[in-house]
Formats: sequence, C-alpha cells, structure tokens
Amino acid sequence: MARLGENRYGKARVRVMKVVRHETHHAMKEWSVRVLLHGDFESCFTAGDNSRILPTDTMKNTVYYLARESQAATLEEFGAELVEYLLANNPQVSKASAEIEEKSWERVLIDGAPHATTYTLTGPELQTTEAVRERGGKLQITSGVDGLVILKTTKSAFTGYLKDKLTTLPESTDRIFGTRATVAWEYANLPRSYATTRAEALATLLKVFADHDSLSVQHTLYDVGKAMLAAVPEMARVTLTMPNLHCNLVDLSRFGQDNPNQIFVPIDEPHGYIEAVIER
Amino acid sequence: MARLGENRYGKARVRVMKVVRHETHHAMKEWSVRVLLHGDFESCFTAGDNSRILPTDTMKNTVYYLARESQAATLEEFGAELVEYLLANNPQVSKASAEIEEKSWERVLIDGAPHATTYTLTGPELQTTEAVRERGGKLQITSGVDGLVILKTTKSAFTGYLKDKLTTLPESTDRIFGTRATVAWEYANLPRSYATTRAEALATLLKVFADHDSLSVQHTLYDVGKAMLAAVPEMARVTLTMPNLHCNLVDLSRFGQDNPNQIFVPIDEPHGYIEAVIER
Amino acid sequence: MARLGENRYGKARVRVMKVVRHETHHAMKEWSVRVLLHGDFESCFTAGDNSRILPTDTMKNTVYYLARESQAATLEEFGAELVEYLLANNPQVSKASAEIEEKSWERVLIDGAPHATTYTLTGPELQTTEAVRERGGKLQITSGVDGLVILKTTKSAFTGYLKDKLTTLPESTDRIFGTRATVAWEYANLPRSYATTRAEALATLLKVFADHDSLSVQHTLYDVGKAMLAAVPEMARVTLTMPNLHCNLVDLSRFGQDNPNQIFVPIDEPHGYIEAVIER
Amino acid sequence: MARLGENRYGKARVRVMKVVRHETHHAMKEWSVRVLLHGDFESCFTAGDNSRILPTDTMKNTVYYLARESQAATLEEFGAELVEYLLANNPQVSKASAEIEEKSWERVLIDGAPHATTYTLTGPELQTTEAVRERGGKLQITSGVDGLVILKTTKSAFTGYLKDKLTTLPESTDRIFGTRATVAWEYANLPRSYATTRAEALATLLKVFADHDSLSVQHTLYDVGKAMLAAVPEMARVTLTMPNLHCNLVDLSRFGQDNPNQIFVPIDEPHGYIEAVIER
Repeated sequence: MARLGENRYGKARVRVMKVVRHETHHAMKEWSVRVLLHGDFESCFTAGDNSRILPTDTMKNTVYYLARESQAATLEEFGAELVEYLLANNPQVSKASAEIEEKSWERVLIDGAPHATTYTLTGPELQTTEAVRERGGKLQITSGVDGLVILKTTKSAFTGYLKDKLTTLPESTDRIFGTRATVAWEYANLPRSYATTRAEALATLLKVFADHDSLSVQHTLYDVGKAMLAAVPEMARVTLTMPNLHCNLVDLSRFGQDNPNQIFVPIDEPHGYIEAVIER
Repeated sequence: MARLGENRYGKARVRVMKVVRHETHHAMKEWSVRVLLHGDFESCFTAGDNSRILPTDTMKNTVYYLARESQAATLEEFGAELVEYLLANNPQVSKASAEIEEKSWERVLIDGAPHATTYTLTGPELQTTEAVRERGGKLQITSGVDGLVILKTTKSAFTGYLKDKLTTLPESTDRIFGTRATVAWEYANLPRSYATTRAEALATLLKVFADHDSLSVQHTLYDVGKAMLAAVPEMARVTLTMPNLHCNLVDLSRFGQDNPNQIFVPIDEPHGYIEAVIER
Repeated sequence: MARLGENRYGKARVRVMKVVRHETHHAMKEWSVRVLLHGDFESCFTAGDNSRILPTDTMKNTVYYLARESQAATLEEFGAELVEYLLANNPQVSKASAEIEEKSWERVLIDGAPHATTYTLTGPELQTTEAVRERGGKLQITSGVDGLVILKTTKSAFTGYLKDKLTTLPESTDRIFGTRATVAWEYANLPRSYATTRAEALATLLKVFADHDSLSVQHTLYDVGKAMLAAVPEMARVTLTMPNLHCNLVDLSRFGQDNPNQIFVPIDEPHGYIEAVIER
Repeated sequence: MARLGENRYGKARVRVMKVVRHETHHAMKEWSVRVLLHGDFESCFTAGDNSRILPTDTMKNTVYYLARESQAATLEEFGAELVEYLLANNPQVSKASAEIEEKSWERVLIDGAPHATTYTLTGPELQTTEAVRERGGKLQITSGVDGLVILKTTKSAFTGYLKDKLTTLPESTDRIFGTRATVAWEYANLPRSYATTRAEALATLLKVFADHDSLSVQHTLYDVGKAMLAAVPEMARVTLTMPNLHCNLVDLSRFGQDNPNQIFVPIDEPHGYIEAVIER
C-alpha cells in the first residue's frame, strides 16, 4: 500500500521586471520568483481530482498582477504580499512561500555620476529572500545573498590541522582565500527597513572578511556571522556557506623559478565546503 | 552574544574515474563525490583551533585512496565504504555522509554490439546516492537519479482546476507532458543488489510514465511512486520532483493556419514545480 | 570618418517542437533555429531608417509558420526551406542562412521495445545543420554534430613529442582518450538522403574512434575524417574538433599504493584543443 | 583520397592568477588563456609522427612560466609575450595566437575606500584580447570585452519596419533596450597604453549607449562604434555584437489593469542578434 507523504507545488523562474518612472530618473528591479503551496491536495495525486488545484500558470499571472498593484520597494515586501494574497484567496492552501532573487543591476556611471535610466549588471551575486507563512501562523522573512564572489590575497593561514597517512596538503601561513559565499539571515522581528538592514549586513560581511586574520574558513565564517548579528539587532540567526575557490600555488621549481606567493592556478573543482549557522 | 549552531564541512566535486581492466572488456565508472562531516568543531570556528580538523584536501585524497582499495561495484557500496572509513579513522566526527553522482557513460554500439573499451555519454541524467551514518547509528542509503528528461506527446490532460480572475490557461485534454525528473528512494533494508533494484526502479518509472492516462503532473507522479514501491519491496519511500518542461501550443491562427496539436514552443522558464514523497 | 563594414542580423534560439501524429506512433523533433540575413541595411545603421528591416520577431514567426507548412523530415530540409522562403519574400536580402540544432530525443525503451509516444533525452550532443544561399548562388548544406562525448580506455598512446625545459608530461603508451567532438561536413552534391548519410557519417566516426590505434589526437582525428569521406561519397570535406577531456592518472604512491592505469581524475580545464579539416 | 586541410591545435582554459605584492596594496589579475599553433604538422596527422609536436601540456607550463617572468601589466602585453616566446622557441610553428580573458575582479569598497588586498567579482563581463603573429609578419592585437550586460529603460524605439503576413510585433516608441554586448577592436598601431585605450573605449561605449536616441539596435550599435573610433585614434575597426535581452511588456488588460510601460517579462530566448563591423 502506498500513501502520499509531504508534498508541495508551485511555479519557479517567474521573471518580472518593474520600471518605476520618476521625473528625474527610473527605478528598475528584475526579480525571479518561486511560489510554493502546501495544502490538502491528496485527491489530486490519488484520483486526478483537480478541483482544489490552483494552476501554476495562474500563480505566474499572480506575480505579474501583484507586481503592478504593489508599492513594495524591496523583494522582502513583495514576497510578503505574494504569500498573503495566495493565502487570502485560496482556502485550500495551508502554507505558502515565495522565494525571490534580484539581479545585481546598478546604474551605469557616466563621467563619474550614475545615469538616470541606464543600468549594468554588476556581479554574479543575487539578492535573495524567502517569505513563508502557515495559515494561522506568523509571517517569517529570511533575507540574503547568493553567490557573492570575494577573495583576499593575504591574512589567511591554515596550519595545525590533523595529519594522517593520506595528508598531502602543506601548511600555509599566507594563502589565497576565495569563496562564492551564500548567506541568509532570519528576522526575529520586523526590521526598521529591509533595505537598510540588508546594506548593513552585507557591509559588515565584506569588512570582516577583508580585515580578518583568518586561521581557517571556519574561523572567518564564524567571525563574519558574529559581527553580522552584532550589526543588525533584528537578525535572529545567520546561515553562511563558504565553499572554497581554491587557488593552488604553482610549483615553478621544475622550471628553475621561485614562486614567492605570486603565481596561482584557480580551480573550480574539487572545492572545500563549509556551512554553519551562527545564532544568538 | 553569538554562538555556533548547526554546522558541517567537507569536500565537493571530487571527481574520480575507475577503469577495471577485464580480459575481454573494460568496466569504467565516473563519479563525482561530496563528503560532509559533522562533529565537535566548535573551537575551530570560535578560536581558530584546527587540531580536530581533517583538511578537506585529505578527504579528497581519501576518495582516491579508497577508489583504489575498493571492490565496490556500485556507487552505493562506495558511498558506504567512504562513510565507514571516515568514521573509523576520525573519532572527532559524529556523523559522516557521502553523496555520489555517476555519469551516464555506456558502451558505444558498433555494428549493433557494445564495444569492449569505448564509451559514449548517453543522457544528461546522473545516477545518484547518499550514504549517511551517525556514530552508533545505522547506515542509511538513498539511491536515485537526477535530471532524467522524459516527455510524452499524448495521454496527458489538465482540466477541472480552480478558476479565478487571474486564470488564463485553457483546459487541455491532450497536451505535451515533459519533465526533468529527479527521484530518490530510501532503503528500508539492504536490497538484493543495488544495481538490480536501481534497474527495476527506473524501468518502472519509465513504464508508468509512458502508459499513464495523466490527469495532472501530480496524478502521474503519484502513480509512478506507487508502482516503484510495489516493484521494489526494499524501498521505504520515494521522493519525486517533476518540474514541467512546458511546450506551449503556438497560436497559428494569426497566420491563417490551424494547429491540430502539432507545433509547440518549448520553454525553460517559468516552469511548474511539483514535489511529493510517496511512502508505505 | 566611420563606415559600416560587414554586418548581419537575425533571430537566435527560436525553439520549436513538431509532433507528427501517425496512427501507430508519433514522430517528434525539437529544433533550435538561428536565422541570419545579409543585405543592404546601411541606412538602418547610419540613419535609423527601418524601412528595409524585417523584424527579428517576424523571423521567429516565420519559423513557426514554416514548421506547420513543411513536410521536411530532416533539419537539413527545413533549413533549406527557411533560406528559400526568406530570399523569395525579401528582395532587400542578399544572403540568408539557417542554423538548426536538434536535441537527442529517442523513444523510451519499455520491455525492450521503443514506445510509440514517449521519449527520453539521450546524450548531450546536438545534431546540427547550416543551410546558406547567396541570391543567385547555389544552396550549400553543412551537417554535423556538436558535443558528442566519447571516450576509450585503451589503444591510445602519446610518445615521441618535442621536449624542452618546460616539459613535464610523461610519455604514455596507454592513456585514456576522451573528447567532446564537434563535427561538420559539407555536401558537394545532394545526398541520397540526409538521414542516411548522417547515420553513415556518425557510425563511421564511432567505429574508427573505437578501433583506432591512436598515436595522438591528431592521428585519430585524421583517420576518422578520412574514413568519413570514404563512407559518404557526397561529402566534400569534414571539419573535426576534438578537445581533450583529460583524465589524469592519480599518483597513489604517496599513499603506498600502485596505480596500474586504474584510477584517474577527469578534469574539464585546462584542455587540449585540436581542429582540422580533412578534404578530398 | 583524403588530404589534410587547415588545422591548428593548442591548449584552452589555462587559468592563472598573478598577485603582485606591493608595499601598500596588492595587484591581482585572473586570466584564462587559449594558445593555438599553426605549422607543418602533417606527418602527425597522417602518420602519427609526433616529432614536431609541442605537447599542449607544455603550452600550459609555458603560460605559468611566462606569468612568473613577465612584467606585463595588461592582458595584451602578456598575450604578445606568449606569442613571441612560442615563435622564438618553436621553428616548426608558422603562426601563433594567444587569446586571454580577464575576470572582472575589483577591490572591495570598505567604508567607501578600495581595500588594499580584498576583491570582489563585479559583473559577468570578461576583458579580452587576442594576440596573433605569423612568422615574418607583424604582431596584431585585438582588445575587447565579452558579455557586458547593459540595459536602458527609455530612449529606445522601433517603428517603420517591414510588415508582411507574418508580422505580429507592435511598433514601439518607448521600449526597454537590453543587450549582452561583445566588442572587439583592432589596433592599427601601438596604443599609448592598452589600459588607457581600453578605459576610453569602454567609457565611450557606455556613454553613447546611455544617451542615444535609439531607433533600432543597429542604429545604436553604429553610433557606439563610430564614437569609439573617434575616441581612440589607434583603433582600426571595431566589431560589435548586440544580441537583444528582450523584455516583453505584459498584457495586464486580461486582469483589468493598465500597464503604462512598467511591468515586463525578461526572456533569454529567442533573442535578436545584430552584429556589425564599424571601420574607418
């Protein structure tokens, strides 16, 4: 006998661009949205009864419709609006979530000044949020950034680790530390402004990463998270993922050359993977 | 005050190819491994103390070393060996996991017969496994496939769903049903053979998908999962993810043409996303 | 003073799927088309005069329209139809080309037999064609395959090469030879059938690759091309690109193990790149 | 009878990072290099004679070796050094080229000031060069940028184009104009400084793109190229490729809403493709 366990469904990669046309300049945002619903959909699975199914095509339309209605200035606010709309209009839904990624568009600098209506994509990273609410429960907002690529050329060591018969890594007191960081923080309570806390969180991340005397990725990850919690009082906890972007020192002695920490080979794989939650 | 919450670390994208050179033919497998460790690593995070850290570089070497020692014929067996080795040799580790992806290499057919030593990549899908064990606990094995792209050109309908003011999707009694399926099943107990149960599981998936009179993605997903549980008694539960690969019927009436379900535009985004666990 | 040099424009990634519904089974093809036009478009560039510009949006519609009209059984025939339509209906166009990629969909095997209406994607490779004609000139057809991933575990050596002070590669009499081959052949005259010559061309490629006693990538590439020309008399020349998919033998002596050509690390980068035209 | 036509070989995706450690700050560059050689390699292809083959593995080592020796401050200078080294040390080579891509690393801003030793990846675009020289000929340098993503929310129209029975695109006097531009300019003679001319070329591109009253992609492309030639006297010609990043206005009238040029759906495919050379 089989039975239905946990399940959810929705629409992913709903892309939408909104242009707000101010007198002196335009404000533009590009979002990709994933909406997911939980609820009592058992008869759909077991009997092909679609009478309680909101089509994913309609969820896509809902994103477009709300984008037009919305005054949301941040992805967090738009995510919350989506969740509330879906719960309010769909009694069969017990829980709704909206995950949004925002591309790193910034105004182009022309002669040093940001242009009023022209943009360029700056960086691979995506600003992210997840808004989720169970019917009868409290709205929870997580904010973060995905794929922020940062690298420091000094103040990073790795020594004193376990050695066994399979160890070949030499200790290093001055190595390259690169990572494609993914960060997500949960709010304990409503922040002053999502945009402000986001800016503070990311400025803190960059500052601690840059200045840290790193003894390991774990060591830096922890101090980054600790500083983020200190900087943003509304933050309940932060999850940091810091995969290594390894840069291997090239052995140039084969060619009669020295290599005083100058020439490296960056590799994408394999890569170290470090993940931790820092909480209060 | 900050404190360390859940954390784990390891090495990802450790790629290894093993060639077993039989007299009459070669057996070749290409794997990509991710190893993750849990344990008491708090002092590493909070104080930069690496004395209990097995470097991720050594984990990489462990994969190579064990690949040479191993007699494992399947990715599941190799995953289990990795987990056991890491637990046995690292008292500081409380839990270890190994996730492995295997590429779809198959012998090339030459004049209708599989060649002894030449391969071609067949399909984007990856065969997968995760082996995980907590110290003192039981080894758990999950097997599956990632990114299996399948499509049926008939026997798929979607009607009778909820309509609201944002509905624009027309009902369809004969649409294209394409998906990039990801499937993972947990074993309740040790199977006769991982290779045999994998073959049975996937043959069942394909057969039910092909023959099903689908009333929705959910409907087919459920019947696929139910049949997989029936076919493989060792399976405890199966998680199926079936994002739509939408193929939209083109409106050719603008050009004075009919379109009797013949000409479609496949799109990658947005896409529906349906996920469920089917269990006993 | 600036002036307009060579230029062309068109529409790329026009995806279309065609399902032909036979009584006993369906025939399905998925194509991605790129159409490019040359002509006298100077005033558009220099003065913003669009009066001779066929919008790329209309080219997209043309693909859909012709897909419905067409009886073409192969991508080559459809490419030719597109080129002829564009030249016939656009006097301002002096030259038109259509490049088409076809995905590797094949009927799913159920109990050993191909299913009538269900497909799976088999392999990353794309079947390709380019049809091009200058007004007043002859239609030229090139056919090929992009990204065919093949690998042989024996019968590949590389010795006797130049050595200098930067050489570190050891000679090998038995190495892995993997490649992601891209192949394109031009027709000197109309083939018996594009499908037949394509099948013959690719079967020859695989057979020679598998059986060849390779002394270098160049050596195998040449013999593959020579055999393809011999097998397909309509072929004027063939261009083969064979980047290495390097598989490096792991040095296990550091762990007290031997490695009798068994354990390898596949790498994606850097990779060798070999390209040549073989002609009559 | 078969014979060898045009051919070339080399090494691609040779990644190297160079860190120059100044007293007050570090200078860091990450490059990916492709080296290609032409020459008399016929016996290698036809007879497996490797005696004139410089292994691609040695080319990789050459990149590392020269990176250590080099004082090159720009990718153009390093490309030229590579070409000269390969020609000087390999009499069997008749022509050598080096293509280099540089990642968009920039110093992180901390409290508004660039950090001395910490970087972030800013933008998907790659700075590029190709250096090529035939033995006995003159070194030719091309510089450019690949994948520069830019978008303007106004000053872009498209009207007055050809209409036929397949036209469905409405005219627009105010549309979004986004592109992933690829640009490459050839030097007629040695520039004052590759870094300076690169900065001038790209600043000109951005300024003209931002301010242009665009009547079509072609129109803007031409005026961008014309301005680049005017700004950089050393430039002989510039090739611009401007695929559209289409943003489609959403039809919100179905939901009883207006859409005064505010809500768009960005799509990746299909996309327009416009390419032209602007020369003196």
